[in-house]
Amino acid sequence: MKKAILLIIDGLGDLPTPKTPLQAAKKPNFDKLAKGGASGLLAPVGRYIVPGSDVAHLSILGYDPHKYYNGRGPLEALGLGIELKDGDVAFRANFATIERDEITDRRAGRIDTQTASKLASELSTKLSNGVEAIFKNSNEHRGVLVLRGSGLSEQVSATDPHGDMKLHPCQPLSEAAVKTAKAVDEFTQYAHRTLEMAPENSEREKPANVVLVRGAGKYWKVPSFLERFGLHGACVAGGALYKGVARYIGMDVVDVPGATGDKKTNLNAKGKAVLSALIDHDFVFLHVKGCDSAGHDGDFDTKKKMLERVDKELLPWLIKSGAYIIITGDHSTPCSRKAHSGHEVPILVYGDSERIDSVKKFDEISAASGGLGHLEGKDIVPLILNLIEKSDKYGS
Amino acid sequence: MKKAILLIIDGLGDLPTPKTPLQAAKKPNFDKLAKGGASGLLAPVGRYIVPGSDVAHLSILGYDPHKYYNGRGPLEALGLGIELKDGDVAFRANFATIERDEITDRRAGRIDTQTASKLASELSTKLSNGVEAIFKNSNEHRGVLVLRGSGLSEQVSATDPHGDMKLHPCQPLSEAAVKTAKAVDEFTQYAHRTLEMAPENSEREKPANVVLVRGAGKYWKVPSFLERFGLHGACVAGGALYKGVARYIGMDVVDVPGATGDKKTNLNAKGKAVLSALIDHDFVFLHVKGCDSAGHDGDFDTKKKMLERVDKELLPWLIKSGAYIIITGDHSTPCSRKAHSGHEVPILVYGDSERIDSVKKFDEISAASGGLGHLEGKDIVPLILNLIEKSDKYGS
Repeated sequence: MKKAILLIIDGLGDLPTPKTPLQAAKKPNFDKLAKGGASGLLAPVGRYIVPGSDVAHLSILGYDPHKYYNGRGPLEALGLGIELKDGDVAFRANFATIERDEITDRRAGRIDTQTASKLASELSTKLSNGVEAIFKNSNEHRGVLVLRGSGLSEQVSATDPHGDMKLHPCQPLSEAAVKTAKAVDEFTQYAHRTLEMAPENSEREKPANVVLVRGAGKYWKVPSFLERFGLHGACVAGGALYKGVARYIGMDVVDVPGATGDKKTNLNAKGKAVLSALIDHDFVFLHVKGCDSAGHDGDFDTKKKMLERVDKELLPWLIKSGAYIIITGDHSTPCSRKAHSGHEVPILVYGDSERIDSVKKFDEISAASGGLGHLEGKDIVPLILNLIEKSDKYGS
Repeated sequence: MKKAILLIIDGLGDLPTPKTPLQAAKKPNFDKLAKGGASGLLAPVGRYIVPGSDVAHLSILGYDPHKYYNGRGPLEALGLGIELKDGDVAFRANFATIERDEITDRRAGRIDTQTASKLASELSTKLSNGVEAIFKNSNEHRGVLVLRGSGLSEQVSATDPHGDMKLHPCQPLSEAAVKTAKAVDEFTQYAHRTLEMAPENSEREKPANVVLVRGAGKYWKVPSFLERFGLHGACVAGGALYKGVARYIGMDVVDVPGATGDKKTNLNAKGKAVLSALIDHDFVFLHVKGCDSAGHDGDFDTKKKMLERVDKELLPWLIKSGAYIIITGDHSTPCSRKAHSGHEVPILVYGDSERIDSVKKFDEISAASGGLGHLEGKDIVPLILNLIEKSDKYGS
């Protein structure tokens, strides 16, 4: 039976300075796939729209973000393995350091994950008005806060400081959000008191003595990827957000030891995990994060090296699988901009009997003259269904 | 800070006979920009849709004409500097010659602008039912009529003859438009009486003794370009319609002496005006009309020469500015058709660090293989925002 792997390289696209990292990288496997397949350019959400990774992934996986995106918090919470219930409001959270009423470090001295886990274990609690607060940390200072209870709203402001380095009270942005804003502030006070007393903080120069939240979103269960497209999908990813997107749409998430969601991730382990997942799934969504982080840091060399690692350590597994291979990115993160941009990302499709175009290399410039032309995120699931002959015919 | 210039060459696109005017023109600067930038084809409203200049400009400037276009009259009125109020109904108007009940010249012998101004000064008046008529002439026989009052409607027929050369009474096209149609007819009678007595008409072989109206549209203030896109925009144009589009969306309109909106326009003056406007604006919309008029006249040579003038007299200013440059047209006006057509227009984007494609010339055929592919009007504002790093990220 035909199967497909969709490799999304986060922040893949770039701008020439005078070459792009893809153009500069030594990448025989990428180029072999481009030469033996068809290339094009992808605008994940729409031409020149600058997407966040959350929105771009939803769009590429067939979930129109205008309909299915409701903030990053729930996706992060799902990514950390929290079982959300309809109506939960979830936030991205940071451990931070506050002295008197000044935030002196938004990352609490980049606290290590182990210490943060100990601190986090004390923070889930019952608040007033029947609201439950569920807190879970991820890596370093990062974590999520979930509020559970009746009548909660995502229409609240962030407590994360913007410019002035003060701890902001949570503001309701609509009448319906007053209860939620109060719950956030109550949690903030509770967390502050609890963290101030925690032994783990007693010797820290930058105590993790406050939790800041942002990215509020309300969770509702959506129709699954399987229900909508008839595909048994699995996700192989390191970063919580990407696992969260996969869980949100009901995909199985494979736990891969060593998949860290950064440039040190174990790509061989991810490659092996893809092969295992293909045994009982039609489709694997495979995510690699390191290129995006390098783009944000403006670090051309690290982005190039990450691409070379993907070429050498990950692509051989995909080629070996015999599955159709689709490689693209969720957006461009040009090193020269240190931020996401609205430039298209290259995409290639490789597999048995597909139409091979004249493109010989996988990069932003070569792909522009490829046989796939210009695609949008919404085209990708139909592309995959068509490749593996799982499309429903429209009409008769 | 990054800035951008959008040059819209009216009626730019053409068909090959056997070359297009762009292919035939000597245009080193256009080609230099194409060679150092990226090219593509633009369907201003949608593939193969034949747009009017009003609709095409709105679409390219991010104002979906299905939502924001309500007839040409208000745009022309705004272009002539009339301050419209919500609910005003505006018409394009012509001075014409009527003998008994036959229109013998729709342009009143192409009356000169100065004489027309004198005649126009007598035509604004109070009509019955509390309706105010505001008349203003533009160049030669052209002008606008604005009706102001409660409960007016744009659902009225033109009085301009169609085929039979009779002066048509204004017909209400819906129940709600009876008052407006009566007001138009009352104005027509008033104007006829007034013009018959005007000394300027006494010696004219073709007296300007009647005003014909068409293109009714109701004005409502719309959210500004700045509000919607965060860009401080300025318009450099000769023709009233283009200034009107700019005023409609709240852009600053630069007054350029010598910018006439025809083939004799002072392109150097326009180029200088662009540079001045860039000092305190993020974005300049620059319009050149002459190519469209030549296309309507079926005058290949004049269209080619106008393109050569733009190349020689205008583009050096744009290149000198250091801003990002986008060059395109609002529609094709093939000389062989003497009318607008639905063929795409070439577009090029030039500026620092953009992805350069293999296109070396700026013309309809070369642009078809460019890296931008096929764009629509709605893509242009996102393209500009992305170029100058002013996009809002969608998602996080």
